[in-house]
Amino acid sequence: MKIGEGGLAREVMEAVIRKTPFAVLVDAKISHYEPGRVDLTVPVKDQMKQHHGFVHGAVIGFVADSACAWAAASVAGDVVTSEYKLHLLAPAVGETILGRGYVVKESGRQVVCRADVFALKNGTERLVGTALATIAKMKA
Amino acid sequence: MKIGEGGLAREVMEAVIRKTPFAVLVDAKISHYEPGRVDLTVPVKDQMKQHHGFVHGAVIGFVADSACAWAAASVAGDVVTSEYKLHLLAPAVGETILGRGYVVKESGRQVVCRADVFALKNGTERLVGTALATIAKMKA
Amino acid sequence: MKIGEGGLAREVMEAVIRKTPFAVLVDAKISHYEPGRVDLTVPVKDQMKQHHGFVHGAVIGFVADSACAWAAASVAGDVVTSEYKLHLLAPAVGETILGRGYVVKESGRQVVCRADVFALKNGTERLVGTALATIAKMKA
Amino acid sequence: MKIGEGGLAREVMEAVIRKTPFAVLVDAKISHYEPGRVDLTVPVKDQMKQHHGFVHGAVIGFVADSACAWAAASVAGDVVTSEYKLHLLAPAVGETILGRGYVVKESGRQVVCRADVFALKNGTERLVGTALATIAKMKA
Repeated sequence: MKIGEGGLAREVMEAVIRKTPFAVLVDAKISHYEPGRVDLTVPVKDQMKQHHGFVHGAVIGFVADSACAWAAASVAGDVVTSEYKLHLLAPAVGETILGRGYVVKESGRQVVCRADVFALKNGTERLVGTALATIAKMKA
Repeated sequence: MKIGEGGLAREVMEAVIRKTPFAVLVDAKISHYEPGRVDLTVPVKDQMKQHHGFVHGAVIGFVADSACAWAAASVAGDVVTSEYKLHLLAPAVGETILGRGYVVKESGRQVVCRADVFALKNGTERLVGTALATIAKMKA
Repeated sequence: MKIGEGGLAREVMEAVIRKTPFAVLVDAKISHYEPGRVDLTVPVKDQMKQHHGFVHGAVIGFVADSACAWAAASVAGDVVTSEYKLHLLAPAVGETILGRGYVVKESGRQVVCRADVFALKNGTERLVGTALATIAKMKA
Repeated sequence: MKIGEGGLAREVMEAVIRKTPFAVLVDAKISHYEPGRVDLTVPVKDQMKQHHGFVHGAVIGFVADSACAWAAASVAGDVVTSEYKLHLLAPAVGETILGRGYVVKESGRQVVCRADVFALKNGTERLVGTALATIAKMKA
């Protein structure tokens, strides 16, 4: 079920997600998969909001971190996030939060990834966050 | 209910938290309050975990971001997070996640804050995360 | 000499650079200019190196920060860097360091920018750094 | 000349600095050394300035990055910076730039460090920058 040099196949990643209680809580799903490029979606629910009615930054953070970690896993197998930086660029309003994750550079022990996060509302995408992350390989 | 130059008093901040669905969902409480220094706690529940059984990074991110934002609010009033960087330093295991937020520098339009995040288990604290954030003032 | 909503024209930016002693010290030049997209180059000299013979991270940092700040200035006029995150992705070896700066999102008070930094050696480009920055508008 | 588990002694670190052309260019000196805590100073010269007459952010970046890397080296031996985030908190004016580096957490492959940067003018210290960095161990 491994791909190429050791990345996780989509089905393996989806099985890991089903065993991740927080990912199940927010109902995160992979919406695009190719090695080095993984997207995920989270449907917006009222309990995810902050006091102005926008989606809470913690959910944007989850989507950004997961997009980076899952993109890294698609090329490097089992991984764990070391650190990330997240910019909250605009209030997040809509039905769905979408994260697009990209591998920037894979090296021996880690994968540097980038993610853009969008709020989808009535068929339009709005950029609401961007992130840059270091994802560590477990077996490096 | 304002303090000094315009920071939020503890009771005002607690009222905002009660109107923040995501904060209610994770049962976040202020455990220490003074202007420029705010701590919060979140009790660990199974649904907050990732697939290895540790507390999910999104919860550590929520605690780090909130500690920074609430410390900023204690001196600057209504605020919103612009960006933060979070290091995940160790697996988070325990009964409670504790975030300690510190104002590093307040300027005209923003407050730079720092937070350390600890997992509390059987009475011992373990450092599991550290963050550095830019918190924007709403009325600057 | 202003462009559109208040960005600096290329000639204005080049005049600012000539009055910036550190930029003159490292002989930084704009190599591409359009509103929202600015590139710069720095020729490698021995004094810019670290003890392994690679270009020092401080020079990569200068190029990344300048690419972000100059891209921001091209749309927003006079600016100052608030903060940036820089990843050093590979040892920098070559004749020239090239930074490509991109505006990610302009808002009322700031511009979030991204930069990629390359080492040029014998006609090939190698990605050696990537950065994400908050650039503040002076007159916002 | 090694200390404890493999950190560099002060004299070893000073010998490395003398072989680092960029550190020699800016005349960087260690002003405090203990394992996990290293400070450095850089005397301000005109060529280090930007166009408003303040010390250029690239010099603040050099001091922040070096304080982090040298603090890491004091516990972990030969190291290289993976990434750092730097906040520029105030214009830097004065005779000397001082960086204070702290180890936050050492783990198997890396050391997370923090640095504060001060401008010294007429005997007073002003905080002008703060940074958070991942420093990789060379032999991990």
